[in-house]
Amino acid sequence: MSADLSIDLNRLMQRIHALGEIGALAGGGVKRLALSDADKAGRDLVQSWMFDLALSVSIDRIGNVWGIRQGLEALPPVMLGSHIDTVATGGLYDGNLGVLAGLEIIHTLNDSAIQTKHPIAVAFFTNEEGARFAPDMMGSGVHQGALSLDQMLATQDADGATVGDELDRIGYVGDVAPGSLRPASFLELHIEQGPVLEEADIQIGAVTGVQGISWTEFTIHGVSNHAGTTPMRLRHDAALVAARLAVEARNIADDFGPPQVATVGSIRLSPNLVNVVAREAIITVDLRHTDETKLKEAEQRLFDCAQQFAKQDGCTIDRRTLARFEPVEFDSSIVRDVERTATELGFSVMRLPSGAGHDAQMFAPNCPTGMVFVPSHKGLSHNIREHTAPELLGAGANVLLQLTLQQAGINP
Amino acid sequence: MSADLSIDLNRLMQRIHALGEIGALAGGGVKRLALSDADKAGRDLVQSWMFDLALSVSIDRIGNVWGIRQGLEALPPVMLGSHIDTVATGGLYDGNLGVLAGLEIIHTLNDSAIQTKHPIAVAFFTNEEGARFAPDMMGSGVHQGALSLDQMLATQDADGATVGDELDRIGYVGDVAPGSLRPASFLELHIEQGPVLEEADIQIGAVTGVQGISWTEFTIHGVSNHAGTTPMRLRHDAALVAARLAVEARNIADDFGPPQVATVGSIRLSPNLVNVVAREAIITVDLRHTDETKLKEAEQRLFDCAQQFAKQDGCTIDRRTLARFEPVEFDSSIVRDVERTATELGFSVMRLPSGAGHDAQMFAPNCPTGMVFVPSHKGLSHNIREHTAPELLGAGANVLLQLTLQQAGINP
Repeated sequence: MSADLSIDLNRLMQRIHALGEIGALAGGGVKRLALSDADKAGRDLVQSWMFDLALSVSIDRIGNVWGIRQGLEALPPVMLGSHIDTVATGGLYDGNLGVLAGLEIIHTLNDSAIQTKHPIAVAFFTNEEGARFAPDMMGSGVHQGALSLDQMLATQDADGATVGDELDRIGYVGDVAPGSLRPASFLELHIEQGPVLEEADIQIGAVTGVQGISWTEFTIHGVSNHAGTTPMRLRHDAALVAARLAVEARNIADDFGPPQVATVGSIRLSPNLVNVVAREAIITVDLRHTDETKLKEAEQRLFDCAQQFAKQDGCTIDRRTLARFEPVEFDSSIVRDVERTATELGFSVMRLPSGAGHDAQMFAPNCPTGMVFVPSHKGLSHNIREHTAPELLGAGANVLLQLTLQQAGINP
Repeated sequence: MSADLSIDLNRLMQRIHALGEIGALAGGGVKRLALSDADKAGRDLVQSWMFDLALSVSIDRIGNVWGIRQGLEALPPVMLGSHIDTVATGGLYDGNLGVLAGLEIIHTLNDSAIQTKHPIAVAFFTNEEGARFAPDMMGSGVHQGALSLDQMLATQDADGATVGDELDRIGYVGDVAPGSLRPASFLELHIEQGPVLEEADIQIGAVTGVQGISWTEFTIHGVSNHAGTTPMRLRHDAALVAARLAVEARNIADDFGPPQVATVGSIRLSPNLVNVVAREAIITVDLRHTDETKLKEAEQRLFDCAQQFAKQDGCTIDRRTLARFEPVEFDSSIVRDVERTATELGFSVMRLPSGAGHDAQMFAPNCPTGMVFVPSHKGLSHNIREHTAPELLGAGANVLLQLTLQQAGINP
């Protein structure tokens, strides 16, 4: 614990706001979709700060960028990282905080001339959001070998542009093989993007892992009929089956209890007319749990009910898995370190899982990995009203600073 | 009863198929949207048949067309009528049957040189379907004074064309004041457009009236949140409220029992994404009942539940009436006449209400009015697979012939 060392909050906020001006939206917030011109400008700015901080910068073939501050020993670096791409109506903190807090930590160490045993790397990964190119966490996934470089380079956006072409266009095709740098550990500071910390009036979240995610799309096939002339007993109403399934998804979450969550965010009916019984309903169910066994139980109950509801109303039902990730657990000693460090720095802290995906989860299978959350006001994220008070951003960055020093090692 | 008189089924079928060729669709069925070029061609053909049958043809200012066969006495005519416009994917029988059966009856009477006391009018009314211009039953509504001529002439389609301009363009602005002809009674033969007769294996429907219709649109206001990071207890999920309401609509229909029907045909979520709790849901509920008191009870239960469900999940809800028609009862002695006549002709018959709107309902408040249904195969209508077997069409036309003679009166 180097309690007398702390980051410069003003400097951190200046970098956050300077980066937030690139792709700034009229009403606040920011739009820097992956590999767009705005993303290029953001990358150029962050890279220039890396050079200013005397980091040794590398770019890999999927466009991930990292800068390394030398250590005292020939060891793999402790890596601090996140992303700087945003969704179409994003905020200033999602992703950016983790990268810019990393740079601020380098700045602080440089100013104090503190040497660490391990090198320290600060990275930003390509296309974490998945808003323009699917899947999300693309750069970190390729970096950690979970995704194929060639497949990802060939991925197209809605207009047919590929990741490879767009990387080339903005000048971010690096020559380093993804994954050639294997960090000793990985740390990511991020806004919570949910309401839990704020509601509990807690300043720091010690992130235990990432919820497992199960996305299922159900297509219900009924029979289109006239809403006036068809008696109820002769109907095969796809919309009714969808509605029963949406209510059941909530019942599953209620019966399983936290941390089970269940969401029906999308329902599409055909023909979707006031006086026509729906011929078809397409409904998505998003289930998440930190425990793979529980997640599988929730899926099974949902699938069984879907079959039962369809049969009950004389419909048929198909299902398709849109996404499926097992829960990720972060390194238990880093989770404890986050708790202890936050407490020693005088911050309130609680453990919680992440409900959203993050670059850190790609590192978790391969090296000790941890995350620190700071509260999101009203839980808003992917929203131009995304906000975290500067003192909370600073609290998170100071926790990250101490964790970095613990992981990287300093001479006493 | 003139039991030895019957219509010529081949001639009726020839007219049905000749009219069905105008606006014919590749896979079967027909598209003659109101006041389109195809509608003009259909009108021209039917009008030419009226002339061929020596009818005296009039056109009114909303484009309704009728042809009158003189009676023996100076009495108002018995009117037989329906419509010849179709929906975008319509069938050959919806509307057309009632008009062409009327012409076939005239043809039969002409061939047999039968004179009636009352004149007989055969009419087709403008824009019954409402598929291009709202509301439906426009021509008959103006004719019977339920709708304003000037307002209807100013009604626009999706492209901004008005009824008045389109009537002018196709040459069907008549000089007769709508409603100047007040029939002694009104009779309409129509396909059921529902599955009840076929399922019961009954040939003729004695239509007791038209169900009252209540269309409500609910807009549910929730809060958009991340599907992973927002605990269930902190959600205000507009989609869930919509789903509960859709299930409740079915429960209302089940609890009230037939003839109550309830349909949720349209649900629209915003932003309608798999991993975002819906900020807004717009849902329509179509309630129908033959009894106004029951319909009001169903509405009240629906409205109360909507409020309760919204409150329960921390949402707010607005509602808007999209359409509201009280039930219509047809003339009880004509209903009995349909039953008796069908039985005397050797056809099976049952009473049933109409679940769909028809031109006849506009006449019901003003003169004795009745309808005859023939079965729809699988209940399909507004569908290119709409079908009724020729012998059933003939059965309906023969019942209509006898009813017409009863209403118009013949010398024994």
